[in-house]
Amino acid sequence: MTDRPNVLWIMADQLRFDYLSCYGHPHLHTPHIDALAARGVRFTNAYVQSPVCGPSRMSAYTGRYVRSHGSTWNGMPLRVGEPTLGDHLREAGARAVLVGKTHMTADMEGMAWLGIDPASEIGVRRSECGFEPFERDDGLHPDSARQGWSAYDDYLVSQGYDSANPWGDFANSGVDDDGELLSAWLLKNSRLAANVPEEHSETAYMTDRAMDFMESAMQDGRPWMCHLSYIKPHWPYIVPAPYHDMYDERHIIDPVRSDAERDTAHPLMRAYLDARVCRSFSRDHVREHVIPAYMGLIKQLDDNLGRLFAWMDDKGLSENTIIAFTSDHGDYMGDHWMGDKDFYHEMAVKVPLILSDPRPEAAATRGDVSDALVEMIDLAPTFMHALGCEPKPHIIEGRDLTPILHGTNGFARSYVISEHDYHWSEMARSLDVPQEDAHTLMIHDGRWKYIRCEGFDPILFDLKSDPMELVDLGTSDAEDHVDVRARMEAALLSWGLQHHSRITATPAVLARQKTAAKSGILIGFWDAAEYEADTGFPFSDLTPKGKP
Amino acid sequence: MTDRPNVLWIMADQLRFDYLSCYGHPHLHTPHIDALAARGVRFTNAYVQSPVCGPSRMSAYTGRYVRSHGSTWNGMPLRVGEPTLGDHLREAGARAVLVGKTHMTADMEGMAWLGIDPASEIGVRRSECGFEPFERDDGLHPDSARQGWSAYDDYLVSQGYDSANPWGDFANSGVDDDGELLSAWLLKNSRLAANVPEEHSETAYMTDRAMDFMESAMQDGRPWMCHLSYIKPHWPYIVPAPYHDMYDERHIIDPVRSDAERDTAHPLMRAYLDARVCRSFSRDHVREHVIPAYMGLIKQLDDNLGRLFAWMDDKGLSENTIIAFTSDHGDYMGDHWMGDKDFYHEMAVKVPLILSDPRPEAAATRGDVSDALVEMIDLAPTFMHALGCEPKPHIIEGRDLTPILHGTNGFARSYVISEHDYHWSEMARSLDVPQEDAHTLMIHDGRWKYIRCEGFDPILFDLKSDPMELVDLGTSDAEDHVDVRARMEAALLSWGLQHHSRITATPAVLARQKTAAKSGILIGFWDAAEYEADTGFPFSDLTPKGKP
Repeated sequence: MTDRPNVLWIMADQLRFDYLSCYGHPHLHTPHIDALAARGVRFTNAYVQSPVCGPSRMSAYTGRYVRSHGSTWNGMPLRVGEPTLGDHLREAGARAVLVGKTHMTADMEGMAWLGIDPASEIGVRRSECGFEPFERDDGLHPDSARQGWSAYDDYLVSQGYDSANPWGDFANSGVDDDGELLSAWLLKNSRLAANVPEEHSETAYMTDRAMDFMESAMQDGRPWMCHLSYIKPHWPYIVPAPYHDMYDERHIIDPVRSDAERDTAHPLMRAYLDARVCRSFSRDHVREHVIPAYMGLIKQLDDNLGRLFAWMDDKGLSENTIIAFTSDHGDYMGDHWMGDKDFYHEMAVKVPLILSDPRPEAAATRGDVSDALVEMIDLAPTFMHALGCEPKPHIIEGRDLTPILHGTNGFARSYVISEHDYHWSEMARSLDVPQEDAHTLMIHDGRWKYIRCEGFDPILFDLKSDPMELVDLGTSDAEDHVDVRARMEAALLSWGLQHHSRITATPAVLARQKTAAKSGILIGFWDAAEYEADTGFPFSDLTPKGKP
Repeated sequence: MTDRPNVLWIMADQLRFDYLSCYGHPHLHTPHIDALAARGVRFTNAYVQSPVCGPSRMSAYTGRYVRSHGSTWNGMPLRVGEPTLGDHLREAGARAVLVGKTHMTADMEGMAWLGIDPASEIGVRRSECGFEPFERDDGLHPDSARQGWSAYDDYLVSQGYDSANPWGDFANSGVDDDGELLSAWLLKNSRLAANVPEEHSETAYMTDRAMDFMESAMQDGRPWMCHLSYIKPHWPYIVPAPYHDMYDERHIIDPVRSDAERDTAHPLMRAYLDARVCRSFSRDHVREHVIPAYMGLIKQLDDNLGRLFAWMDDKGLSENTIIAFTSDHGDYMGDHWMGDKDFYHEMAVKVPLILSDPRPEAAATRGDVSDALVEMIDLAPTFMHALGCEPKPHIIEGRDLTPILHGTNGFARSYVISEHDYHWSEMARSLDVPQEDAHTLMIHDGRWKYIRCEGFDPILFDLKSDPMELVDLGTSDAEDHVDVRARMEAALLSWGLQHHSRITATPAVLARQKTAAKSGILIGFWDAAEYEADTGFPFSDLTPKGKP
């Protein structure tokens, strides 16, 4: 134990904010996550910086907006010179350890250009978002270019699940009554039990690995931040028994959608609705197969977290470990006639966020619910603060949440931002949008959600009068809507023109700027008297130091 | 000689566009630069990306806007992971060689963090803007933190000019009738002859060094781009005989300024006018001392370029060398009651730009004058094209000028952008502007020049009705002015929200995005039939490859 707390940062993947009982789901009971909320602060307005895995995570791991770090889409490498939370923590003597998924793609070209060996200690960190990789697993099919074979595949083989693709054949397939193996990549198979017992599933395995890390860290003694990053409930949607048949049609909430939405004339929304994944999830039988599996995956996750928290209690780790629980984005699940994520309705861009701080300073806020507007990038500075790292406002764009945790003043944010680069998509192809213009951006002040769509009309929702986001006011002539849009555009302009790339403006560099006159660089002085009157220094002090 | 041309990129420092006879100066005759224009294209609307040395140059050397490379002010290190023109050229087998000034500050913190030894080959390039330094000389006082002692100081000592500070005591001081040494840092001394003969001055020395480089390159054989970067006519304003008394009061053009400007109510302009350097240059006796020296420095530069061009003719280098001549920004010289640079009136932000291309493709445009809107960042892609480097639109934000040089279609730009970070300044201190908000930005479409001042009213000039920029329309209620401002804000918003940091989006990365379905990542397919109908691939093709 050290005098600094440790941080366990748990991230689920593709978990909607409203599929937990503490966030109001009527049928999905998640007592362990709810208990975490009861001993911490639960945030009801937490937004990710992009409604898709890769860029959202790169923002989380750098504390910077997507437009700042530049990794705007999955598989877009995070540039080698982009500093991460792990780098800042290491500088302060703490470890930043990865157990699970990051969705990072390494900038191999950048490393080659700077002479960095990817296999070196520095190269490995640069390939893993600045983390020290205890376990890296992006949970994707071994055919993926990102990951050919994982430690979890090895684990499955070691447990007797022998196959050329154990991840696919066991963890992410089901078996029908005739014994035929059926891939969970196909949605019709979602309600089968996964072909692996729960204790050997990805969620259980990663929970075990987190324990392995914490066990080893108890010997090590250095303070740490551990990112326990689960792959589920992200697709492929399939869950082991008994979770596969805990939920059925009776537990499915009605979709949030209207006929008017389906008839939208907005070209980009039209293109979204025409895209395959949206057409797919607009079908009730798809929802009826996928949602029970999705709920089962969340229930399984909650049970594993219960197991983890009990183990931490047992080991005495809970009293000195700040626990964060969140997700990298949500999932439409057919709401608004949409599937997957990639846009800005609440179920896609808002995430659950719970922060439990065991320190006495947080005693007064246990069980609080905060409706403050917060962003995923706020976690990095919050963890930096907890682990004794100096603030770095020239790099970190998130804001420290400690004041909210400790019930003090000091946190302020007037709007949240999220961005999406859709150059890769069916929408860009069907609309023939050049790849440099295929981007959208959301700014949301807690009531008004304004979505800028480069080349198209904006979209505007009033969450006060229309909390379901069914009525687009983006072209409304009503005076207050016109005013709101102008205000949002002005805020976006200020935000867009901020110094997002001025990351070398350290306090030392900024201080150096002030000393130019004394250093002998004089601009606009007529004579010595003027210099002395203006600066207070005698001109004769400016004797050159010459050659050393 | 190779089949690719070489590029000699000559940059003067702080040279106004209108202080050359080919740009219309009535008294300052610059026949050698004029002759270059006669055998090339002279641009009348070339703008720098920041009206100050450091950020303007970092844009020139990266081909990227200031907000993209992040080095927003002098001495703000260029982040270690920022690719430069030199890196791109080297990749294409060409050399990028520096002779003179860059104003680069190395990102020592970034290099340490990435394990790059500043003394290594890669470290040296990263410290010199990606150039191979043949001669680096930023021309600043040896007391400067940036440069303690230069090769030019060594040269002066070797020529017998012994002193603890030869740069200051000889090249940048004068001697009065009593033999007293008088520093050119003080403006009252500007009209003295520099305490060094012309042939040993900075301008002559750097010209000699360029010849030394080209001589060596003739042996080497690789194609090259040489950046010959003069320190003058930048302050300290003093020039050796006979140039020191070639010009006097009779040759000074009347200042461009009005009483109304001096009475401005705009808080930021007010703060500029109250700043010392502007008060200083608003005094006629300052202009009368400085301008003749400034003109003499330019005349001396022209004579040295004449010497250089004749030498190149003699060596047979002219026939295979593209020559660019430009400046990093201008100088107010008391116009608009302002001194130095740092704002967006034409004399500060517009620069001379001449491109002379000896290739036959450019024969038809020799002597042309182009009024196309061009930016300093356009030079990098132009040189990359000439030296056979593939275009890199994900990194380079400038646009290739080759179509203009070769009289073909293909160059288009609807506005130019320039930015300024004034966090360091008297203005920021007197207005108490937080350092993150102390920035301005110009967008200019050839007629309307719109200056956005974060936290203050915008400034707007109509260069058609008001070419002298004396009437600020930033708050005018006239309908066309309101419309223009809205149009400019919209253009800025589009520009500001572009992907300025997405530098890892190589063609290979972008192509990879398209292959996801075939790689085995399937989102939203109900069954195999749906997959096959949609993709055209049999589902059975998706057999996993398994462990190698």
